[in-house]
Amino acid sequence: MDATLRDDGVVEVGDDARQRFYDSRGYGRPLSGNRLALAPVEAAHLLWRGDLDAVDDMGFEAFLTDAADLLPFAVYRDLRERGFYLSPAREDWVADPTGADLVVFPRGMGPWDDDVAYRIRVCGERETVPAESLGDVTLAVVDEEGELTYLDTERTTAGGDAAPSTADLPEGVGASLEADRVIAWDPPAALYEAAFFGQRLGGRNADGGPLQLSLVEAAYLSRRGVIDVAESVVVARGREVEGDRFDRRLRAYAAMRTAGSIPKSGFKFGADFRCYDAFSGIDDMGHSDRLVRVVPADHTFLPRDLSLDVRLAGGVRKRMVFALTDATHGIDWLSVGRLTP
Amino acid sequence: MDATLRDDGVVEVGDDARQRFYDSRGYGRPLSGNRLALAPVEAAHLLWRGDLDAVDDMGFEAFLTDAADLLPFAVYRDLRERGFYLSPAREDWVADPTGADLVVFPRGMGPWDDDVAYRIRVCGERETVPAESLGDVTLAVVDEEGELTYLDTERTTAGGDAAPSTADLPEGVGASLEADRVIAWDPPAALYEAAFFGQRLGGRNADGGPLQLSLVEAAYLSRRGVIDVAESVVVARGREVEGDRFDRRLRAYAAMRTAGSIPKSGFKFGADFRCYDAFSGIDDMGHSDRLVRVVPADHTFLPRDLSLDVRLAGGVRKRMVFALTDATHGIDWLSVGRLTP
Repeated sequence: MDATLRDDGVVEVGDDARQRFYDSRGYGRPLSGNRLALAPVEAAHLLWRGDLDAVDDMGFEAFLTDAADLLPFAVYRDLRERGFYLSPAREDWVADPTGADLVVFPRGMGPWDDDVAYRIRVCGERETVPAESLGDVTLAVVDEEGELTYLDTERTTAGGDAAPSTADLPEGVGASLEADRVIAWDPPAALYEAAFFGQRLGGRNADGGPLQLSLVEAAYLSRRGVIDVAESVVVARGREVEGDRFDRRLRAYAAMRTAGSIPKSGFKFGADFRCYDAFSGIDDMGHSDRLVRVVPADHTFLPRDLSLDVRLAGGVRKRMVFALTDATHGIDWLSVGRLTP
Repeated sequence: MDATLRDDGVVEVGDDARQRFYDSRGYGRPLSGNRLALAPVEAAHLLWRGDLDAVDDMGFEAFLTDAADLLPFAVYRDLRERGFYLSPAREDWVADPTGADLVVFPRGMGPWDDDVAYRIRVCGERETVPAESLGDVTLAVVDEEGELTYLDTERTTAGGDAAPSTADLPEGVGASLEADRVIAWDPPAALYEAAFFGQRLGGRNADGGPLQLSLVEAAYLSRRGVIDVAESVVVARGREVEGDRFDRRLRAYAAMRTAGSIPKSGFKFGADFRCYDAFSGIDDMGHSDRLVRVVPADHTFLPRDLSLDVRLAGGVRKRMVFALTDATHGIDWLSVGRLTP
């Protein structure tokens, strides 16, 4: 079977290639006269399988080294082995190639169908990934030994549907700023028990007593007049101990409270917040639903850091969500989860 | 009961304080004439419990705000509640106060005994912690809402006892550098199956075929003459894609291999390496035992990052180990684990 690497990087194959490779197995795109155009990654895969002997005079090793890229090949091979037909995301080959390297069709479907199961972007573990470029692709990360991790990304919302409103809370509760937190010395029970602000100074088993509020909780409450410490004082202290990060965290915190979710410290999970999306009172608490990390709007991820966050969240059965914000405009919410295609 | 805050920060209590607080419950240190010296955190705890009414004219709130610190109090209270007697790590009060804030005695023991259960260092979640200051203390991290996480730290070794030697491997195996990895196109089976270098290009199910080696694996193998790519070429590429980090990782990798452990990519866990400390062949593999993150010798931890690593490692039942190295001198191995006192 003659196979030639054209100047435009496409491999053109003749004979019965269209029937053998496209019609029955979804490789490439038909050309006129029963010929077939293959992307380099597809040609590499056919060489790997022994379905093609050579492209020009290159066998698998020479072709992979000179004409194709190792990383897309590793991902293409893996997804084929999982039973998918897939297509390089070339202009004119797929409907929406932007931001994707490969388009995976649902099992049993192929390039002649319109459905798409996954839009895949291939990246090495050492490449940085701009947060704003995520949300409608699945990252296929190739680690330094060539193993694959699939991270599905999607846009989401501040979420939640059960958080109590601060409208029921009293105003002017006495509190004082102590280093990097605020203490309400004699708070009304509802502040903690019904609205889940703060933690008891006496620990989880304490029945009442003073409440420690984080600076984001305190800033949120003082803006609403619930505690008698001035918002400006709390925010100033927050910026002092956290810099710009405090403004971003406060913005995300307030957006989630307003959207009906209860964010609490995510420290034990190495995150900014753990969030209770359904909460009806402290006596009837389930597990939190999401872990949230707040990052600047122009943040770039290292795949290894993403892998760490997502693995931990998966292990405790929570969704991992990133809040992207510059603290003055809106917030983009990005959910990232591990995927087994 | 009279209680006075002295100029040196100690609270001096009279009456039957020695019997009530020291002899029966391990607070403070006896002074002459049946009087008792209390550290501020101890006095705060006695005020909190109502065992002391006031120090001078300060009740709990005033004393905690003006004369004691909130964070040590939160930790002291928690450990007392867990049934421990403990002592502030003041000069002359405990044998080895260096680097610790509180010394916890084994359950049933107290300051009149010589045994120590934990040496505790208190820190807020926003404080940075120099890596070199860890290894013989338990960090008690107080998060922004006042919840506690205990992280036990100890010095450890490169570890392992079952890794095969490279002495059994052939020399001069053909390989080539491809972007940020090395491929051995037709490797001897032992390289992967007996010594667990690389991953098969054909995936986990492949029976033989080319092997992808990470740059640290390749550098280690080329120094020993096992592959025919020059070590200098591999190291140069490593520095190109990772900078100094490559030298640190290579040093840790080589130390672990030499010590009888097999380090493989830790990417799926967000770490540098996962390590198999007992390994007898690819067909008989158990789970890896440790996750290793390599950091510069002068690294400072953010407690939140530590919490993330340790929580993830705990969730997959592995030990979290940090390799501290400047890549030219030795390596300090630091094991960090979550502790429930």
